Amino acid sequence: MDETKVQLSEREMPREWYNIAADMPEPPAPVLHPGTGRPIGPADLAPLFPMELIGQEVSQERHIPIPEEVQAVYRLWRPTPLYRARRLEAALDTPARIFYKYEGTSPAGSHKPNTAVAQAYYNKKEGVKRLTTETGAGQWGSALAMACNFFGLECKVYMVKVSYHQKPYRRVLMETWGAQVVPSPSQDTNAGRGILAQAPGSPGSLGIAISEAVEDAASREDTKYSLGSVLNHVLLHQTIIGREARAQMEKADAYPDVVIGCAGGGSNFAGIAFPFLRDRFAGRAIRFIAVEPEACPSLTRGVYAYDFGDTAMMTPLVKMYTLGHTFVPAGIHAGGLRYHGMAPLVSALYQQGAIEAVACGQRAVFEASVLFTRTEGIVPAPESAHAIRVVVDEALKSKAEGRSKTILFNLSGHGHFDLAAYEQYLAGELEDYSYPVEKVREALATLPKVS
Amino acid sequence: MDETKVQLSEREMPREWYNIAADMPEPPAPVLHPGTGRPIGPADLAPLFPMELIGQEVSQERHIPIPEEVQAVYRLWRPTPLYRARRLEAALDTPARIFYKYEGTSPAGSHKPNTAVAQAYYNKKEGVKRLTTETGAGQWGSALAMACNFFGLECKVYMVKVSYHQKPYRRVLMETWGAQVVPSPSQDTNAGRGILAQAPGSPGSLGIAISEAVEDAASREDTKYSLGSVLNHVLLHQTIIGREARAQMEKADAYPDVVIGCAGGGSNFAGIAFPFLRDRFAGRAIRFIAVEPEACPSLTRGVYAYDFGDTAMMTPLVKMYTLGHTFVPAGIHAGGLRYHGMAPLVSALYQQGAIEAVACGQRAVFEASVLFTRTEGIVPAPESAHAIRVVVDEALKSKAEGRSKTILFNLSGHGHFDLAAYEQYLAGELEDYSYPVEKVREALATLPKVS
Repeated sequence: MDETKVQLSEREMPREWYNIAADMPEPPAPVLHPGTGRPIGPADLAPLFPMELIGQEVSQERHIPIPEEVQAVYRLWRPTPLYRARRLEAALDTPARIFYKYEGTSPAGSHKPNTAVAQAYYNKKEGVKRLTTETGAGQWGSALAMACNFFGLECKVYMVKVSYHQKPYRRVLMETWGAQVVPSPSQDTNAGRGILAQAPGSPGSLGIAISEAVEDAASREDTKYSLGSVLNHVLLHQTIIGREARAQMEKADAYPDVVIGCAGGGSNFAGIAFPFLRDRFAGRAIRFIAVEPEACPSLTRGVYAYDFGDTAMMTPLVKMYTLGHTFVPAGIHAGGLRYHGMAPLVSALYQQGAIEAVACGQRAVFEASVLFTRTEGIVPAPESAHAIRVVVDEALKSKAEGRSKTILFNLSGHGHFDLAAYEQYLAGELEDYSYPVEKVREALATLPKVS
Repeated sequence: MDETKVQLSEREMPREWYNIAADMPEPPAPVLHPGTGRPIGPADLAPLFPMELIGQEVSQERHIPIPEEVQAVYRLWRPTPLYRARRLEAALDTPARIFYKYEGTSPAGSHKPNTAVAQAYYNKKEGVKRLTTETGAGQWGSALAMACNFFGLECKVYMVKVSYHQKPYRRVLMETWGAQVVPSPSQDTNAGRGILAQAPGSPGSLGIAISEAVEDAASREDTKYSLGSVLNHVLLHQTIIGREARAQMEKADAYPDVVIGCAGGGSNFAGIAFPFLRDRFAGRAIRFIAVEPEACPSLTRGVYAYDFGDTAMMTPLVKMYTLGHTFVPAGIHAGGLRYHGMAPLVSALYQQGAIEAVACGQRAVFEASVLFTRTEGIVPAPESAHAIRVVVDEALKSKAEGRSKTILFNLSGHGHFDLAAYEQYLAGELEDYSYPVEKVREALATLPKVS
């Protein structure tokens, strides 16, 4: 490959998502109703999600067609480019070949619209008028705001109050696409009012914001709820990343020895990894590394157990690697990785030994990210920068061993809204956070009992 | 054309810039030495610019090869996509076909790196170790910071003090690429110290920042100066935009009836327009519209006269449309359009009747920009939004006349660092600025006398 990047034409864009459930040697554990402890059915989810997404959640079909209406919106930025990171390779003086898929070309700046557009479409198709969701730093909220705008849906985003005030530009982005954004806890829901009554100065949390968005959706006929990670159908929609990357690697006459992605809820990692995992199931030697923050190390330090998806215990119970639903991670800049659990599909694959996981400290992550910016040009999102840290480490290992190796990673988004973090790093003022042993011990003590 | 966007492969990227000087029916007026009033020669410019750029400034060659080292950096984001704005067309219910070239895919987020990379390369090649420049809102400064980083040059950016404090993220972006950024007026130059002594609270201006950057470059052997617009060689480097657009329009089986670009110093307008202007010189019917803000309408309200390029009267005299070098435009959000003059090449073409110009108010510009964001997804930079205002007007005219028309415009950058402006617009708090008759009259009274 002589090119700097491999492009696919719009005609070469994949027309199907890849559903890993069809190929997993062992299926993931069923989702349980928190009251009865029995597996939940479609009816339990119907107040929150449209039937087509509920169907995808449990589908065993290997390939699921991407509706033409969804493809049409994808084409506003997809297929995304695959880069060969020659300048980074040169800076590291490594024999490794490094490729990255760049998802920051979407108008919202990350991979999140891949599922937001699909979810908005299916909701619209089933007559839904309005979607609610929560957002922390705002990557997900802005993706859903954009998607709702394209399909003529109202969108209400409950944004964690501390982020609402700290990251006004992400909020403005959502508003520019027409969404309504309120700081959470808000006066608009029972959950919000209850918390404000007890703690008027509450800075909010993702757990609280989820509770508000779910209550809002459940209490209105015309409204459903949308989640940006964790669930099977969300991971499914992200597989277009890996399917494109496969085609592009083939054009570059290359195949990865190792695939690397950061992992918060798990969807961007799944997006790049799942379409290659199929080869591993078929016997091919290929490694996968999910990278998480030391401040929130669900795979590397959590337990594999049934837990709630949210802090307020309103969701069903899912079996996953978890630090406990009451665990509140430190305020690292990679807001998208501050989740106590991990997608059930990714968790099952980790438990089955199909993928590896590594946890990184914040300063080491930004060190790698600044090196990337100075070699490849693009300023990565702090979440994506976690993957880069491990890419650099793998490339240096390759150098130490004197052996070439092909590395592929997902650069899930740009850091244009995260420059305050870079400012702190460059000033030597970025805090590091190590594994919070005691806090995790306490949170794990509150895991629900499942017989 | 069925596609949403037309891509070129890296192999299809143009390998030459287009030099309009070779085809202009009348050459622009010579640049004069402010002391002698005589045309300047290469020796006058040598302290500030490398010889290769001075050569390009006066070249009559039609095509100038893009060095392989510059192409290699371009390939990090070029060729950029050409979009068909189908959703905008649908929203306007217009028979017009609207195409746009999107330059926001560069790591710095605008078209500015097209010349920054070339300038850094030629300076490096001639042994220069360090470049200085000025920046207002920061688009240009970040482009040059990135370019210097790629060629191992030191970069010092004098950033207008009020922007330095109001737009910290643009500053951090420059620092992440390794540049040194100081608020101007600074203590680092005689010009800066002089102003601080008289006005310690000075918010700075582009004129002051230019004086500081020029003084710095002129006073150090290892340092030269870099300018982001206005000069012939800068416009030349931007013609890669229009050359790519020509090839892409051809692939789309289309040719523009009208080409539209915003115009501050003139380089992004020149970039999209010049490679098509050649056809006009050859007799083809094609219109060109430069769009400027009502607050700073150099083409539509200025005079065509010799004037200084900077406020401090340190530059040579150039013949251009100018509002007077002492004119200070109102604080519109399109910082890149706040320049008292217009590139001599663009000015000459306007004077010769080859191009048209329109001035727009800030609120009308943002109205069009929000419509664009909600139809096409991308949030435009406030500068680029000026072009969109006139695109919308032309498309509506097309509808009123019941005649189809093919419109091409340059979306020169994204607005990720300009969301404060969108926030004001959405809140109904955006100020409008009309043509400042009195201020321009006063400024024009200070034009230098040239015999």
